[in-house]
Amino acid sequence: MTRGITPPSADAAAQARARQAVLTKPAGALGALEDTSVWMASVQGTCPPQPFMNPRVVIFAGDHGVARSAGTSAYPPEVTAQMVANFITGGAAVNVLARQVGAAVRVVDVSVDAPAEYLDALDPGVVRRRIRRSCGSIDREDAMSPEETVAALALGTALADEEIDAGADILIAGDMGIGNTTPAAALIAVLTDSDPSSATGRGTGVDDATWARKVSVVAAAVSRAGRDREAPVRLLARIGSPDIAAMTGYLAQGARRGVPVVLDGVVSCAAALVAAQLLPGASAWWCAGHLSTEPGAALALEELGLRPLIDLDLRLGEGTGALLALPLLAAAATTLADMATFDSAGVSDRAH
Amino acid sequence: MTRGITPPSADAAAQARARQAVLTKPAGALGALEDTSVWMASVQGTCPPQPFMNPRVVIFAGDHGVARSAGTSAYPPEVTAQMVANFITGGAAVNVLARQVGAAVRVVDVSVDAPAEYLDALDPGVVRRRIRRSCGSIDREDAMSPEETVAALALGTALADEEIDAGADILIAGDMGIGNTTPAAALIAVLTDSDPSSATGRGTGVDDATWARKVSVVAAAVSRAGRDREAPVRLLARIGSPDIAAMTGYLAQGARRGVPVVLDGVVSCAAALVAAQLLPGASAWWCAGHLSTEPGAALALEELGLRPLIDLDLRLGEGTGALLALPLLAAAATTLADMATFDSAGVSDRAH
Repeated sequence: MTRGITPPSADAAAQARARQAVLTKPAGALGALEDTSVWMASVQGTCPPQPFMNPRVVIFAGDHGVARSAGTSAYPPEVTAQMVANFITGGAAVNVLARQVGAAVRVVDVSVDAPAEYLDALDPGVVRRRIRRSCGSIDREDAMSPEETVAALALGTALADEEIDAGADILIAGDMGIGNTTPAAALIAVLTDSDPSSATGRGTGVDDATWARKVSVVAAAVSRAGRDREAPVRLLARIGSPDIAAMTGYLAQGARRGVPVVLDGVVSCAAALVAAQLLPGASAWWCAGHLSTEPGAALALEELGLRPLIDLDLRLGEGTGALLALPLLAAAATTLADMATFDSAGVSDRAH
Repeated sequence: MTRGITPPSADAAAQARARQAVLTKPAGALGALEDTSVWMASVQGTCPPQPFMNPRVVIFAGDHGVARSAGTSAYPPEVTAQMVANFITGGAAVNVLARQVGAAVRVVDVSVDAPAEYLDALDPGVVRRRIRRSCGSIDREDAMSPEETVAALALGTALADEEIDAGADILIAGDMGIGNTTPAAALIAVLTDSDPSSATGRGTGVDDATWARKVSVVAAAVSRAGRDREAPVRLLARIGSPDIAAMTGYLAQGARRGVPVVLDGVVSCAAALVAAQLLPGASAWWCAGHLSTEPGAALALEELGLRPLIDLDLRLGEGTGALLALPLLAAAATTLADMATFDSAGVSDRAH
């Protein structure tokens, strides 16, 4: 997992910056869209870049021991399997938003806490590669074994390969799992050296008492992890989860193969932080789709040096915030590609 | 101009809120998109709402005496006419973004400071209904006469009628005019009772010395206006401009005819503030496409009670920030319309 990566093209980025400066608009007037166009040029290795044509979402579904043992969610764990079915029948927010932008959606049961037979009614829509059923309650025990962690990372790597080989030019990692913001907060607290209370949010909407309990669970997990940033695989085993480990492998493999990723909410931000530890420089291949209301998302994106494109108080996960950002990526590319220059349009620049 | 308006449908809004509560997601997890879907239901008078299918942009082009007399812009006034030509040939950012979302673009020479003959090369793409050539330097004289002000408002009203009669289901007001952020700042300072320095920004990117001069121009204009919020037509004549007056008429007519508007940058926010004075309740028909870096935009949107959808440090105007918001409006409508409910998908709600 520690093999290096090829950085995005600095040449294409420089060409994009130079081209932005001669387009018929005040310098910098397209704000963050200009930076986004530069990033797109760099990851596509060409200037001007084109809108992404084949976005693909993989939803990593898994349950979490803490949800059952410590009650850190507003919803019962059964909802995870029910939502997997909803993804397959196309009724979830991620399905609706994916149809709007022409993105493929695939759902993977990584560690759902349901009898494997529930998938029988859903095949072939769901990927059956379960690592284990649910995971340990991270306030008191490891989420999974070292072997399971390696297998989950390899699953994510394989899924990224499959999506890329199927033609993906941009990847999205969605999440579904009652309780999954608890390990996400714990991982972010460790990897950003933050206080558990400042990394812990209300997830699906817990009340004050549940939030306080969730903070204590996160604090216990952080204490168990020992703030060891340097051993990301061990960290995933101790306080992560199979679904987040698989997502980590997927994000890392995107960077390794030079296929960019739009990050989504706090769970994908947590996986991204771990992937960036595994694979230094990987974050150059990623952009931040949106800023979740979960406080850990802002901590993680700041650590990764990524500015979110959308900030609309979303906290749904599934890949929804990343999908909403795709039209902005297209706008960044098309303005850079198609706008007239001062010279071509006969417009006076400020220097004249 | 003081005829009342019909408010958007409270029934449709209530239906939209009720429907959001039973969709398969945590309550409120789609954040501001949920409020946007409620607004769309209210202005369309039906639930669920549909994505807007016929967005139309009118760009109000005009020059400003202050740009020439006080030098408040980083670009020479000649750029206004040059950019009108760029809009017609389709090379500006607004053209590129309009093509991406299927929006029509029309440009109106309201008060450009160029010989009328420059339009000859551009017909029939540009609307020739000039109110006057440029306008008075508002730090020392009225922008225009009362008769010109009334004519400019009527021009905007007529343009909205033309767009609506051509099938527009959502209107956008774009701006183009070297110096136009100066009257926008002055109008906003008066109508939000703000200090001139807090309402004045850097427009196309002026340096510190020019910004300080611009603040003194805005302060002089505010002083000339006497902070008379109750006489919006007189206010436009004294410290506005023909293009902003026409935009005001256009925004008001959208509300009057029940056709919603996506506001753009600081110039359209200034016109919206004036239109809301002319026509109380009009802002219920508007949404805020984005938050410009111009400080007056935030002041105006707060006064209007509107939350911007996009916040990407844009400061281009032309309607660009409003166009970027259209995919988010579509996402708000389609999630409300097409997501499964807890009942239909067999997903447990938190109450279960």
